[in-house]
Amino acid sequence: MKAIVSIIMGSTSDLKVMEKAAVFFNDLEIPFEINALSAHRTPEEVEVFAKNAENNGIKVIIAGAGMAAHLPGVIASMTTVPVIGVPINATLDGMDALLAIVQMPPGIPVATVGINGALNAGILAAQMIATGDTEIMEKVRNHKNTLKQKIVKANEELKAVTYKYKVN
Amino acid sequence: MKAIVSIIMGSTSDLKVMEKAAVFFNDLEIPFEINALSAHRTPEEVEVFAKNAENNGIKVIIAGAGMAAHLPGVIASMTTVPVIGVPINATLDGMDALLAIVQMPPGIPVATVGINGALNAGILAAQMIATGDTEIMEKVRNHKNTLKQKIVKANEELKAVTYKYKVN
Amino acid sequence: MKAIVSIIMGSTSDLKVMEKAAVFFNDLEIPFEINALSAHRTPEEVEVFAKNAENNGIKVIIAGAGMAAHLPGVIASMTTVPVIGVPINATLDGMDALLAIVQMPPGIPVATVGINGALNAGILAAQMIATGDTEIMEKVRNHKNTLKQKIVKANEELKAVTYKYKVN
Amino acid sequence: MKAIVSIIMGSTSDLKVMEKAAVFFNDLEIPFEINALSAHRTPEEVEVFAKNAENNGIKVIIAGAGMAAHLPGVIASMTTVPVIGVPINATLDGMDALLAIVQMPPGIPVATVGINGALNAGILAAQMIATGDTEIMEKVRNHKNTLKQKIVKANEELKAVTYKYKVN
Amino acid sequence: MKAIVSIIMGSTSDLKVMEKAAVFFNDLEIPFEINALSAHRTPEEVEVFAKNAENNGIKVIIAGAGMAAHLPGVIASMTTVPVIGVPINATLDGMDALLAIVQMPPGIPVATVGINGALNAGILAAQMIATGDTEIMEKVRNHKNTLKQKIVKANEELKAVTYKYKVN
Amino acid sequence: MKAIVSIIMGSTSDLKVMEKAAVFFNDLEIPFEINALSAHRTPEEVEVFAKNAENNGIKVIIAGAGMAAHLPGVIASMTTVPVIGVPINATLDGMDALLAIVQMPPGIPVATVGINGALNAGILAAQMIATGDTEIMEKVRNHKNTLKQKIVKANEELKAVTYKYKVN
Amino acid sequence: MKAIVSIIMGSTSDLKVMEKAAVFFNDLEIPFEINALSAHRTPEEVEVFAKNAENNGIKVIIAGAGMAAHLPGVIASMTTVPVIGVPINATLDGMDALLAIVQMPPGIPVATVGINGALNAGILAAQMIATGDTEIMEKVRNHKNTLKQKIVKANEELKAVTYKYKVN
Amino acid sequence: MKAIVSIIMGSTSDLKVMEKAAVFFNDLEIPFEINALSAHRTPEEVEVFAKNAENNGIKVIIAGAGMAAHLPGVIASMTTVPVIGVPINATLDGMDALLAIVQMPPGIPVATVGINGALNAGILAAQMIATGDTEIMEKVRNHKNTLKQKIVKANEELKAVTYKYKVN
Repeated sequence: MKAIVSIIMGSTSDLKVMEKAAVFFNDLEIPFEINALSAHRTPEEVEVFAKNAENNGIKVIIAGAGMAAHLPGVIASMTTVPVIGVPINATLDGMDALLAIVQMPPGIPVATVGINGALNAGILAAQMIATGDTEIMEKVRNHKNTLKQKIVKANEELKAVTYKYKVN
Repeated sequence: MKAIVSIIMGSTSDLKVMEKAAVFFNDLEIPFEINALSAHRTPEEVEVFAKNAENNGIKVIIAGAGMAAHLPGVIASMTTVPVIGVPINATLDGMDALLAIVQMPPGIPVATVGINGALNAGILAAQMIATGDTEIMEKVRNHKNTLKQKIVKANEELKAVTYKYKVN
Repeated sequence: MKAIVSIIMGSTSDLKVMEKAAVFFNDLEIPFEINALSAHRTPEEVEVFAKNAENNGIKVIIAGAGMAAHLPGVIASMTTVPVIGVPINATLDGMDALLAIVQMPPGIPVATVGINGALNAGILAAQMIATGDTEIMEKVRNHKNTLKQKIVKANEELKAVTYKYKVN
Repeated sequence: MKAIVSIIMGSTSDLKVMEKAAVFFNDLEIPFEINALSAHRTPEEVEVFAKNAENNGIKVIIAGAGMAAHLPGVIASMTTVPVIGVPINATLDGMDALLAIVQMPPGIPVATVGINGALNAGILAAQMIATGDTEIMEKVRNHKNTLKQKIVKANEELKAVTYKYKVN
Repeated sequence: MKAIVSIIMGSTSDLKVMEKAAVFFNDLEIPFEINALSAHRTPEEVEVFAKNAENNGIKVIIAGAGMAAHLPGVIASMTTVPVIGVPINATLDGMDALLAIVQMPPGIPVATVGINGALNAGILAAQMIATGDTEIMEKVRNHKNTLKQKIVKANEELKAVTYKYKVN
Repeated sequence: MKAIVSIIMGSTSDLKVMEKAAVFFNDLEIPFEINALSAHRTPEEVEVFAKNAENNGIKVIIAGAGMAAHLPGVIASMTTVPVIGVPINATLDGMDALLAIVQMPPGIPVATVGINGALNAGILAAQMIATGDTEIMEKVRNHKNTLKQKIVKANEELKAVTYKYKVN
Repeated sequence: MKAIVSIIMGSTSDLKVMEKAAVFFNDLEIPFEINALSAHRTPEEVEVFAKNAENNGIKVIIAGAGMAAHLPGVIASMTTVPVIGVPINATLDGMDALLAIVQMPPGIPVATVGINGALNAGILAAQMIATGDTEIMEKVRNHKNTLKQKIVKANEELKAVTYKYKVN
Repeated sequence: MKAIVSIIMGSTSDLKVMEKAAVFFNDLEIPFEINALSAHRTPEEVEVFAKNAENNGIKVIIAGAGMAAHLPGVIASMTTVPVIGVPINATLDGMDALLAIVQMPPGIPVATVGINGALNAGILAAQMIATGDTEIMEKVRNHKNTLKQKIVKANEELKAVTYKYKVN
């Protein structure tokens, strides 16, 4: 089994956010890897990782980081594999991380999801791979349908909320 | 020739921003289509578009919108094709559009690029398709190399800036 | 009894905010309904709801949502019944939801109240209906008077706060 | 002819924003009035206006103001007629006016539209009155359809934009 | 004993912030009054208060309010007695209240202090009165000296913090 | 003639904003002085000014500054004369100056007015002095009445704006 | 032993943030001093400190302050020793302190680090001194290497996180 | 002549901001170099530059960048030479660049100056070098004195501004 998605985080303290992507890939049976690499503290390791990602069979990279979050952009600068950035709320409600990830200059995009949005990063990665992989496309479609069932069921539960002037 | 990328904008006034993606696809010889569809003013047309995109051969959708920018998220809710959102600066320096696009709830990601970042949206779309298309991956790689040449050349021009205490 | 106001929320977790509107309608004996519908996870259900609201006798819709809050605007795009939007504080103190609701493009207004302001949404809905219903106008007037009594009474309690140099 | 909607602005310099509501009412043949009244400079006149609005036949009030925009809230505190607030961009991109209008305390709602959104204020006022007036509801519906035609037509114009790899 | 300063708050829940001003006046033996009056829920009472303040011997008014904080500005519009505004943090870290108080239009100033800054409001009120009252000026001067003593003493305590390479 | 109000600005480039206070004092025949002193570039001169202000007969100080605007707070730390701070919009729409002036720590208040609000600073200074000077109180009252006349007259001009469905 | 770095804080309550710099200097065996001095409450002491710092052998000053944080800028105005500013989160997530420190006018720089970033202030101070002190440069280099070891070790721990589809 | 300071910018379009540092070094006769290197477009060149800076005799690096400004942090991660970051206003008034530069994680500081503050970056660089170079310290001191003369002279010009009630 070879990983086709790589989850990178700037610090192991980000694992509690980033593991939502891991759980998603596990559920969809998409092989993945997880590593902690810091754009600022281990730049050489980041470079080695980024430059070899494509050859190692990685199709999408998910990088999460907080504060002045450079990790997704730095990786994106060294590979043509698409990079999904997850801004992590460490300070300022995550606004610093969001702006430091999404506002990339022309030429080097990072596909940014919402603050702490690691699950969405996982889904997006699967959608990207699905552009060339019908089996994963089918898995994405099935997962999307389960979301709908959940809220339909939640709506049912709202029927239990009763008020004299509430009409069911 | 069938389009594999679809560029959608909420209003034709967004064309001056979004055409950077069009020019990019044209340069890389990636067939694309452009349409103006509004999440708020033509919801039925948006629905028809989104639900048929995959069957029509569209692999990635780029949606640009300003203000309370719902277009990318609304399309993403109706398809499993990955959607790239371009926040357009119409008011508040584009912060309203950025937040209205990037902060999607769990389950429905939008791959968000920077404010007015249509060129990056184009590059990102090509990278996504390249996960399953080696020919486009090669084009993306070549484009990335030209970026490097440009700044190397720009650096040369800085040599012409002279000061007595500037060392060349 | 037929509902004349409809309360919609993007997720049942929003009930603790939105129920203030429900309690208000119950107190004023205005028949209402509550449903959880997600602009992103159940777009078809949202469409069915919005397009039939007027014919079903709904005079005002209250829609609450957080993050990239598209629900009020999406509903507003599919009906001419006035839509009141309640930004819910899920992230960023609710600023993302506020901007995603209030900054609607020309043509499709959403009557936005403050962050988590479901009670005000309820009062506003009653005021809207009261433009054509003198009985509800009378109820709104009575409710407004009770607010005044509360703060007058609160002021009385301040008299109990004593300092040597405080003059009563 | 008696006005059923009243447009109030804090300063005549706001007319260039607020006149979009006036033009809308004129087009829909809804009788309206316009006045400049300042919450801070003419508080007595504001009070006389607000307290008599309902008896004078006014069904909805639209109040536009900039900076620390108190006008909509102050009027709302003195009447049960619904008040629509238009934040006007005088400073800080209009964020001060938006927050000073939308963040009303529990009990006194202001139906807030987007920054400089006077057209939406006009449409919203018509929708409110239409809850009890089928003739105006019909006018609102017709106006909404024209919006759709405009963007459908705009989309046609996009066909004229040609690139070698653009598919029409 | 007649009050020369009046502390007004929009809601009795603001007392825990506003009482710092009360304690300050008590310590300096400056007679004061406290009332809860709401710009939105008791506009008539606010008007009666504001219009009679000067004749009742009030020399400075301190008004605290949160959210769309109109109280200080509304009072300032109805009196020439100087009004000090205290933005109270109820939502959005108090930024809504700060902007709704400080950004007053030309002609009607509110002397704004920091978010939750009721102590500073008290000191500022004393400074204002001291412009025409040498006895209060002396009290303000004495109070200011005590502040200095406190931090000089705090600095002494820092000497107790020891590290091998810390030089005392 | 001795100045009783002192206008200080951090740079002569701020004169175009601050002169509104000067014109106001001139109109009300209140003797004043203007100086450019920088908290950062001429700290000694600021100290000399602040420590002697009270003895020189200055009753209120107005200090305007932009960016990391320390001037009002630094002066306030060295005198018990009340200091009015005017945040000047040099960068970031003036938000940096506003926060650097208004968010003073407990003990040292600065009476802050709106961004570029030098006219309001002038009026506020007059109101402060008027707490102990009935002649100036009378001037403030007269000035306030002229404001009202202006907007009443402006409202008259709105009558000239005609639409078929506008009711005069 | 003479201190070559001086840590100043506006209040002893800031010690829990600022002590990270102290611990760093202690670890690197760089002699330092700590004092609490307030730009607003003890301006004379600040002046004495700043003007004598260079002669006392201080090579770098680290000043931490919250709210309208003037301390770093005020010190910088009175010395040519480089000043590092640490914005402390007391209110508004520290944004007020950040802007009040970093946005210094031309001529008087403050080397600003991140909100609550006292450790980085310590490292930066060591780097500054190291420009003329090879022994300290060596210590800085060693410290930097330890950072790398920590994250390499953390990455090892991630291997213990197991999922069926996670590839190690 | 060997450069002891290096000015780096992410794009030659930043030269109009960054040249203020160049002019400052030229005036103080401090040898410097200028290069355009992009963290994202030429990561290898950035690495070569950063890793050799110290050996090449560079004592301080000034790096300016806009948007998601990673350049200063990326350089700082690869050298122990102190790095001064200049946030450049390309979008969002420069707030994105400020946060992306100043909010560095623990371990890798960037000495951040104000938005577009290249002159202050130059002065700060000179101050840093002056910690080990008395000749440059003397130059810094002289430059600081000229600033004071300028504002003293500007204050003289204010005397020419005359009003009837202005006291000179």
